[in-house]
Amino acid sequence: MVQGFTVWLTGLSGAGKSTIANRLEQELIARGRSVEILDGDIVRTHLSKGLGFSKEDRDTNILRIAFVCSLLTRHGAAVISAAISPYAEARAQARAQIGAFVEVYVQCPIEELTRRDVKGLYEKALRGELANFTGVSDPYEAPVDPDVTVNTDTETLEESVAKILAVLESRGYIGQAAGAVA
Amino acid sequence: MVQGFTVWLTGLSGAGKSTIANRLEQELIARGRSVEILDGDIVRTHLSKGLGFSKEDRDTNILRIAFVCSLLTRHGAAVISAAISPYAEARAQARAQIGAFVEVYVQCPIEELTRRDVKGLYEKALRGELANFTGVSDPYEAPVDPDVTVNTDTETLEESVAKILAVLESRGYIGQAAGAVA
Repeated sequence: MVQGFTVWLTGLSGAGKSTIANRLEQELIARGRSVEILDGDIVRTHLSKGLGFSKEDRDTNILRIAFVCSLLTRHGAAVISAAISPYAEARAQARAQIGAFVEVYVQCPIEELTRRDVKGLYEKALRGELANFTGVSDPYEAPVDPDVTVNTDTETLEESVAKILAVLESRGYIGQAAGAVA
Repeated sequence: MVQGFTVWLTGLSGAGKSTIANRLEQELIARGRSVEILDGDIVRTHLSKGLGFSKEDRDTNILRIAFVCSLLTRHGAAVISAAISPYAEARAQARAQIGAFVEVYVQCPIEELTRRDVKGLYEKALRGELANFTGVSDPYEAPVDPDVTVNTDTETLEESVAKILAVLESRGYIGQAAGAVA
């Protein structure tokens, strides 16, 4: 069986977690891997219906994702978690439970997120109309020592994904792509 | 990647689901498979804390198990679910979601379960002191058309497991064991 692993994306809403997850998935499939993306919405539908956005409920949600990631990782899957996961302690527990774990901080300045604001949520939150909105009306504890930091404000998608792939290669979780030159 | 599948054990408390799951796991590991047992207790700890034993909560619990089984099955694991799963409709939904699904009815007459009664629960339930105890104070909808029926009252553990393995072979989910004779 191949070595399973989990790429754990963390970052604010709109920072680009899903975009990176989808592109990374393509790259991993091209390397012959069996990939599973667990995004926040899928998980809230299938595992965490009824949970809200208190710290306790958010932590419970993250630990359920981590449980599923740990099972899939154990069976050789390449797993990508794309939930906000705002609390450092819950991410640390996920790392401990999963083992083969790469934490990726998907960073983007809040000014840029407010400018993009695809769904109009930042504007609403900044006007005080949206409770529990991470980064505005709810805490986001940025990773202190992530395995990779990508900055979607200044990097291209290709650059961000290449940084993640490089770490996966250096850990031996994936082989080097054919034709890669040092 | 090998073909994943889920063996879905259903039956009353004490009927022998966990015993069969553990023995079946050994047989599948001997065939080189990567096996995951999802038993009711593990799942209630990691996925369904806070859920009770109403029909709605039981169904939610089963659908969460089914979601995880479907992910693992898709990635080539041999999954064994060992939850009571008393409601036929929820089992049908699990089958639909998972695809490569073998329903095993782990049957044992309630008289025999009451005689065994390892944890003293049947006696308590029959005295009316235990609400929501499946088969006594809560419904159990026996499978009408399971893929396999094993009867732990009249068969040995080896016989029960052999019946399940035979179905897995006939479906092409596992290879025939070396030295097997028709």
